[in-house]
Amino acid sequence: VTVPSSTVSDRSEAELIALIQAQLSSPPAWLTIGIGDDAAAMEPARNRLEVVTVDALVEGVHFERRFTPPDAIGHRALAVNLSDIAAMGAEPRGALLSLALPSDLLLDDFTEMTTGFARLATASRVSLVGGNLTRTPGPMMIDVTVFGTAKRRQLLARSGARPGDDVYVSGTVGSAAAGLALLKRNALASSGTRFPSAAHVQSAESACVDRYLRPAPRVRLGLLLGRNRAATACVDLSDGLADAAHQIARSSDVGLVIDGSAVPIDAEAQAWFDSSAPDPLVAAATSGDDYELLFTVRPRLRNRLKTVAAQAGTPLTRIGVCTSDRAVVWRRQQAGGAADEPMPLGYRHFR
Amino acid sequence: VTVPSSTVSDRSEAELIALIQAQLSSPPAWLTIGIGDDAAAMEPARNRLEVVTVDALVEGVHFERRFTPPDAIGHRALAVNLSDIAAMGAEPRGALLSLALPSDLLLDDFTEMTTGFARLATASRVSLVGGNLTRTPGPMMIDVTVFGTAKRRQLLARSGARPGDDVYVSGTVGSAAAGLALLKRNALASSGTRFPSAAHVQSAESACVDRYLRPAPRVRLGLLLGRNRAATACVDLSDGLADAAHQIARSSDVGLVIDGSAVPIDAEAQAWFDSSAPDPLVAAATSGDDYELLFTVRPRLRNRLKTVAAQAGTPLTRIGVCTSDRAVVWRRQQAGGAADEPMPLGYRHFR
Repeated sequence: VTVPSSTVSDRSEAELIALIQAQLSSPPAWLTIGIGDDAAAMEPARNRLEVVTVDALVEGVHFERRFTPPDAIGHRALAVNLSDIAAMGAEPRGALLSLALPSDLLLDDFTEMTTGFARLATASRVSLVGGNLTRTPGPMMIDVTVFGTAKRRQLLARSGARPGDDVYVSGTVGSAAAGLALLKRNALASSGTRFPSAAHVQSAESACVDRYLRPAPRVRLGLLLGRNRAATACVDLSDGLADAAHQIARSSDVGLVIDGSAVPIDAEAQAWFDSSAPDPLVAAATSGDDYELLFTVRPRLRNRLKTVAAQAGTPLTRIGVCTSDRAVVWRRQQAGGAADEPMPLGYRHFR
Repeated sequence: VTVPSSTVSDRSEAELIALIQAQLSSPPAWLTIGIGDDAAAMEPARNRLEVVTVDALVEGVHFERRFTPPDAIGHRALAVNLSDIAAMGAEPRGALLSLALPSDLLLDDFTEMTTGFARLATASRVSLVGGNLTRTPGPMMIDVTVFGTAKRRQLLARSGARPGDDVYVSGTVGSAAAGLALLKRNALASSGTRFPSAAHVQSAESACVDRYLRPAPRVRLGLLLGRNRAATACVDLSDGLADAAHQIARSSDVGLVIDGSAVPIDAEAQAWFDSSAPDPLVAAATSGDDYELLFTVRPRLRNRLKTVAAQAGTPLTRIGVCTSDRAVVWRRQQAGGAADEPMPLGYRHFR
């Protein structure tokens, strides 16, 4: 029984775990020992590699209370990891959820947050197999480990691109950054302990806002690229298109020429960048949080890729080509014709 | 090249990852894709279950800067997870390291911390396969996921204890709490951004202090208990003996009678509890961080257990018996003879 003013510090660790478990679907057959023992135990999938990744959301760095509804925090914490699994061409299977919670976190906000996590987990057929709960004197932190499986020959590494491969991106670029800007404009005045209500956020709702708050990782596309051996290298756009292009270039030891006019930016995001950035294209390419996939494809597999795009139901755009000279450049239309410029670096975490 | 006043914010994420990688042993053959891609990929062990756990250390909750040398933080963050793997009877294999770092963390402290992690990883034959780095406006947080393997029939769950089983504990109880108390008495006056030097901590050094700072998880004992099918249930003492006893009772649906006079408390810790606690035995049993194992054994397997103890090189003490009535009690010597009292609960995280 939850009274509105209850906080997580009014509950024991076991009670908070029980609240999470009530939101989950029933444990899968491969889970030998689940939540409640010292560790989880499970049967590996036959003839598959295990694929595993971890990512964290920290309040004040990756989200802010004054404009992020709690369900979106839980959703994003899982989604950013599913995006990494997708970029490997793997099928997600299970997750561990490690939460550091401020004592004054409202129990209602806690359950809304775990609801966002549980909903995406159920929709993605991901089972929560364990986790950790601790209090923190600082900002809320959500650390999620996701593991999945892939056949060895279907794995999408960063390192397989070759000169002559085409470069593709899924969906659109820059939407999440535009959504974040909209949300900030509409944020709560105070940065106190409260989260915005769903109704408050609704007032800033747009496709871009939803793209930022509740990204849809490209799991199905990644799986289809892997199964059809359609891509030679793949990364996700967590830190933006420019960063992703540099990652593929570095890991594959190739160069990339990206056609600036081909980069797909949706109309709402384009309007935002046009009105706010000195160089809208650079702003879009260096903005993060889109969770699309950037990947490379042999030109002779173009027809196979069309089938993949149709099966995945995802728009794919050819935006460039791999070269042999290691440089990562934009080709941009200017007054005097096309000119190549070095691609800027993306978002940097520490520097 | 490290200058003394450098902080982690003077380095890029890639540079910090390179500093960690330089401390690690070379990647194992089963690791198909390691650090540097969207996710790690690895071959599962044949005919084994996967065992996985996550645990976090938060500055101000699980350690304090004014009395914890950075190498001990890295060591403990891995050790607490190895202890969970040990309590399952599993063999640790790999880890993911997720760090949230304050921008003003000195680079020297960062590398000392990761050195503590890397040293224990190498000694335990655990490979770091991936992780995450983020800055935080709050306290430092270290979130570690460890995975390992076990044959199904060698797995040690919490739920297998039966009435009549003997109850054993490894090593000694209460040492870490005594060590923590000693450390606090000797702490730096300020709780600013600095960590104590090794020399400063040395001045408070004792076996108990080392037990608190650099616990040795009972991995070998857990493996031998599992391989020899010597234990019916097992948990680790992360939250203390009393909590562990309740966990086994609840999961196995049995009662436990613990003989208070049999609980092994080392002399230094005993002296500390005698001088500081109204009830030294309760203080020892409800103190955490010892990372010993509590487990149950069929009485007819007593000889097999002696062999396990000899092979593990670990003292094991029989401290009680499982009953059919679900109550968890102490049998304590008092003026009028022995009396049974309800076992107190252990450390609670939220309430």
